[in-house]
Amino acid sequence: MHNTRFYTLSASCRDRVGLVSKVSGFLAEHNGWILETSLHAEPPGDGEEVGQYFMRLEIRADSIPFHLAEFRERFKPLADELGMAWKITDSAVRKRVVILVSKQGHCLYDLLARWQSKELDIEIPCVISNHDTFRGFVEWHGIPFHHVPVTPDNKTSAYAEVARLFEEVRGDVMVLARYMQILSPELCAAYPGRIINIHHSFLPSFVGAKPYHQAWAKGVKLIGATCHYVTADLDQGPIIDQDVIRIDHSDAVEDMVRYGKDVEKTVLARGLRYHLDDRVLIHRNKTIVFR
Amino acid sequence: MHNTRFYTLSASCRDRVGLVSKVSGFLAEHNGWILETSLHAEPPGDGEEVGQYFMRLEIRADSIPFHLAEFRERFKPLADELGMAWKITDSAVRKRVVILVSKQGHCLYDLLARWQSKELDIEIPCVISNHDTFRGFVEWHGIPFHHVPVTPDNKTSAYAEVARLFEEVRGDVMVLARYMQILSPELCAAYPGRIINIHHSFLPSFVGAKPYHQAWAKGVKLIGATCHYVTADLDQGPIIDQDVIRIDHSDAVEDMVRYGKDVEKTVLARGLRYHLDDRVLIHRNKTIVFR
Amino acid sequence: MHNTRFYTLSASCRDRVGLVSKVSGFLAEHNGWILETSLHAEPPGDGEEVGQYFMRLEIRADSIPFHLAEFRERFKPLADELGMAWKITDSAVRKRVVILVSKQGHCLYDLLARWQSKELDIEIPCVISNHDTFRGFVEWHGIPFHHVPVTPDNKTSAYAEVARLFEEVRGDVMVLARYMQILSPELCAAYPGRIINIHHSFLPSFVGAKPYHQAWAKGVKLIGATCHYVTADLDQGPIIDQDVIRIDHSDAVEDMVRYGKDVEKTVLARGLRYHLDDRVLIHRNKTIVFR
Amino acid sequence: MHNTRFYTLSASCRDRVGLVSKVSGFLAEHNGWILETSLHAEPPGDGEEVGQYFMRLEIRADSIPFHLAEFRERFKPLADELGMAWKITDSAVRKRVVILVSKQGHCLYDLLARWQSKELDIEIPCVISNHDTFRGFVEWHGIPFHHVPVTPDNKTSAYAEVARLFEEVRGDVMVLARYMQILSPELCAAYPGRIINIHHSFLPSFVGAKPYHQAWAKGVKLIGATCHYVTADLDQGPIIDQDVIRIDHSDAVEDMVRYGKDVEKTVLARGLRYHLDDRVLIHRNKTIVFR
Repeated sequence: MHNTRFYTLSASCRDRVGLVSKVSGFLAEHNGWILETSLHAEPPGDGEEVGQYFMRLEIRADSIPFHLAEFRERFKPLADELGMAWKITDSAVRKRVVILVSKQGHCLYDLLARWQSKELDIEIPCVISNHDTFRGFVEWHGIPFHHVPVTPDNKTSAYAEVARLFEEVRGDVMVLARYMQILSPELCAAYPGRIINIHHSFLPSFVGAKPYHQAWAKGVKLIGATCHYVTADLDQGPIIDQDVIRIDHSDAVEDMVRYGKDVEKTVLARGLRYHLDDRVLIHRNKTIVFR
Repeated sequence: MHNTRFYTLSASCRDRVGLVSKVSGFLAEHNGWILETSLHAEPPGDGEEVGQYFMRLEIRADSIPFHLAEFRERFKPLADELGMAWKITDSAVRKRVVILVSKQGHCLYDLLARWQSKELDIEIPCVISNHDTFRGFVEWHGIPFHHVPVTPDNKTSAYAEVARLFEEVRGDVMVLARYMQILSPELCAAYPGRIINIHHSFLPSFVGAKPYHQAWAKGVKLIGATCHYVTADLDQGPIIDQDVIRIDHSDAVEDMVRYGKDVEKTVLARGLRYHLDDRVLIHRNKTIVFR
Repeated sequence: MHNTRFYTLSASCRDRVGLVSKVSGFLAEHNGWILETSLHAEPPGDGEEVGQYFMRLEIRADSIPFHLAEFRERFKPLADELGMAWKITDSAVRKRVVILVSKQGHCLYDLLARWQSKELDIEIPCVISNHDTFRGFVEWHGIPFHHVPVTPDNKTSAYAEVARLFEEVRGDVMVLARYMQILSPELCAAYPGRIINIHHSFLPSFVGAKPYHQAWAKGVKLIGATCHYVTADLDQGPIIDQDVIRIDHSDAVEDMVRYGKDVEKTVLARGLRYHLDDRVLIHRNKTIVFR
Repeated sequence: MHNTRFYTLSASCRDRVGLVSKVSGFLAEHNGWILETSLHAEPPGDGEEVGQYFMRLEIRADSIPFHLAEFRERFKPLADELGMAWKITDSAVRKRVVILVSKQGHCLYDLLARWQSKELDIEIPCVISNHDTFRGFVEWHGIPFHHVPVTPDNKTSAYAEVARLFEEVRGDVMVLARYMQILSPELCAAYPGRIINIHHSFLPSFVGAKPYHQAWAKGVKLIGATCHYVTADLDQGPIIDQDVIRIDHSDAVEDMVRYGKDVEKTVLARGLRYHLDDRVLIHRNKTIVFR
């Protein structure tokens, strides 16, 4: 963590000799001061001859003699040569996080506390909910609140409205902070890698509804939570982070719900932060997380 | 965790044969239905012949044919015979928690979220702070906020004012939610076992100021937080709960502060809950915590 | 943990008023000194009116004026009155643990280290394996080693031989220390609650073969191990203990196997110890573990 | 983890623009295939203008057209230019680990199990002990065992003998596997960064003798172990790894000793492996550990 402004370059391409040399050479040529470098070579899968390479670099903004637009232009030929999927972001540009919430507030309070203290240096252009429960709390923070009721009948139109609001505020990422509703396939498809959910189980165990009840019935000795990207396949998207907490036979489902909340909010905040810092690269149905 | 009203009897006395029999016999005689029983025999210390016995029982309120006042009267002869220190509380009577806070809000947001959702079924009669930072936030929740500035010169009078406010609202427990000030010895002495602090290190390491800086300088690989009762001896009171989180060489002090906050708020809430549920019994400078 | 000889009474019956009073009263009557008491009331299941009660008591052997046989005789009327399933064991009688192993030695080394240091105060009357790999190592410790090869064709006879050896040495518990074979249904049925397995995943995720490969493919961020009683239903028996360890994208399956071994051996040893100390009571397909 | 032979280059120098580019450029020039790269920029300390840079690269041995001797010769000019402290090792050359042990065998069993299974692909040229306890166990594994008794009077000569044995077998690293003796200052000074100890507390808490007794007296709720390099300053050397385990009021010192052993052996093995893989770089009194 640094206080200086920096650019974050994250990229992926087929593995080959000289990759790091070419990219770091480009930066060195322009006197770019690298603050942090994370690299990962994913070995070839079955039937593949070569693996995939992932990188993330933080470069001091004031060490480079041009701005991002010019950086992009100058870097493009090299990226094209390497067949690279890449992006570069600026730490001075706050990401815009739209929060979706239902009637449970622990993740919402937690995220707003991090926003209030600037631990999360983000914009929250609005909060959307299928209930009106937290309108006052959200609006007190000076954040617009939209009540978009969802019923079995209006799912398509309700999620079209959610998408419209997200577009209107130019949201970067949508966070389901215990939203408790299954998004429409259209919404999932519209924002791949941009919708983050917290599921209240240690996936892949206990998919779907009432995971703590499932965990209680099974008699597991640890319960957990999973932060993942949302895909149309329920609770099956790429996992960003997970954690667990110990329970025992004396814990009723209600106790598990209570313990679980602490894991949920922590894992969601951690996963969201990784995403905001461009530390998460998706590869097929898995993630590379450059902690 | 049960939804039925219950009484919690917590007690301690010198260990002897027949203790459990006598206490459970008394309850059985009155048809008392025990929901939860926790017992602990602390072995004799050096030079002692007999150890100390600790117990905590939850009894269904509707299984006993009389109320607490009569329970106390009827139980007293037995407790006297056993030389027992004891108390009994009623789950229907909410404890009154006074929160002290400074300029960091993560524990305050966390506690108010638990109070809002009734996860913590308590009264918060007021919040006291040496800064005015969270007045709006606290008052929005309908909770009175008192600004009691503390300077090197006014410590005695400032903490006399804190004590006065605590008495005025008939506080049961005072929670230092990252209050960042050292209480006066008078205040510590006035409420033994009733003031709970969260210290941002894994005690006994890194007592006092800037524990994350100390941890960084030492190069530890885990950092932690400790919830403890406040005594006049700084950061030395009986420990209620602790936890840690892994860090590595890439984490600056600022990262450690950030990770630490998650541990602090979780450990404080957990320790406070144990206290509120009368699960913590103090024995010399240590605690028995009947989780 | 105490050095004095003690009896362990573990019991379960339908919940009712006065249970603890009656049992502790019986002990007090005979001057029995209780060292440790663990109690648990399992709430009624769906459609049940009353729950199930579980207890475990450690009683100083020298505080009672008679031996176990007489204890059993004297306690029986009360146990019958309460409809209790119960047993009492003597800390001076070492349990007899038969270890089954295959070609991976980490759990075997771990268990023998605990036996050698008397951390586990047990007899190991023999080790049985489908391979001859560890004969020398086991025999060097003075423990008989039996090579019982298992092939797809001889399963019935091979496990009949395992049962015969177990009976011959009067084994109390059979431990599958990464045995890697599926026992015959007959063997599973013959020793309910007496065969302990360590499965190398955080169950219920990743049942069956190659769980680390399954975990890698899924992209989970923690891997685990589960110690459970063996039933005829593969990897579905009552869970005794579980634990996890953090991994990340840079860990190949081979790394996960390596990390996993540390979790496996620790969880197996912990679960076995709970069992040996009569701390595990089975209730339907779950366990009460009085840690 | 890979099965192909590779070289590990680890290096440190003052931070500057173009470091990564130069080093990776050198490798690319010779067609070097980088399997794994870890980089860390340590920010400037107080009063320093520039920080320190650390790197570790794994390079496929068969991708480079020359052997290590020539690599060293060719890399030297660049390393000199950068003012780099560096070394390069070959995964095909097993490191030689000398184990020192006393009368507790849990770490010894654990390390030999990892060696037997080739999880640790090392040579153990000898085990040295101040007691004869494990001679048979060690020799059964085909490893020479040396009994070097240590008394208050013979410390200098005893540790001179230990050093002689270590030199004789050309040891790379000395592991104090619960050796329980304080080495002579001469021995500590002779092998900086090459002697690894496991201390049975979460340092910096509970330095010196009987840390579990200290932990019990303090009433901490977690106990731990610390793997560190040995310096002449008792239990103060650079920390490689640490871990903890939860305890509670019911755990006596003996229980803590027992739980602690599991943490000790796991942390020691993990720290040793980091060291053997050249993942640990020492910077002042701290470590960079490229996990």
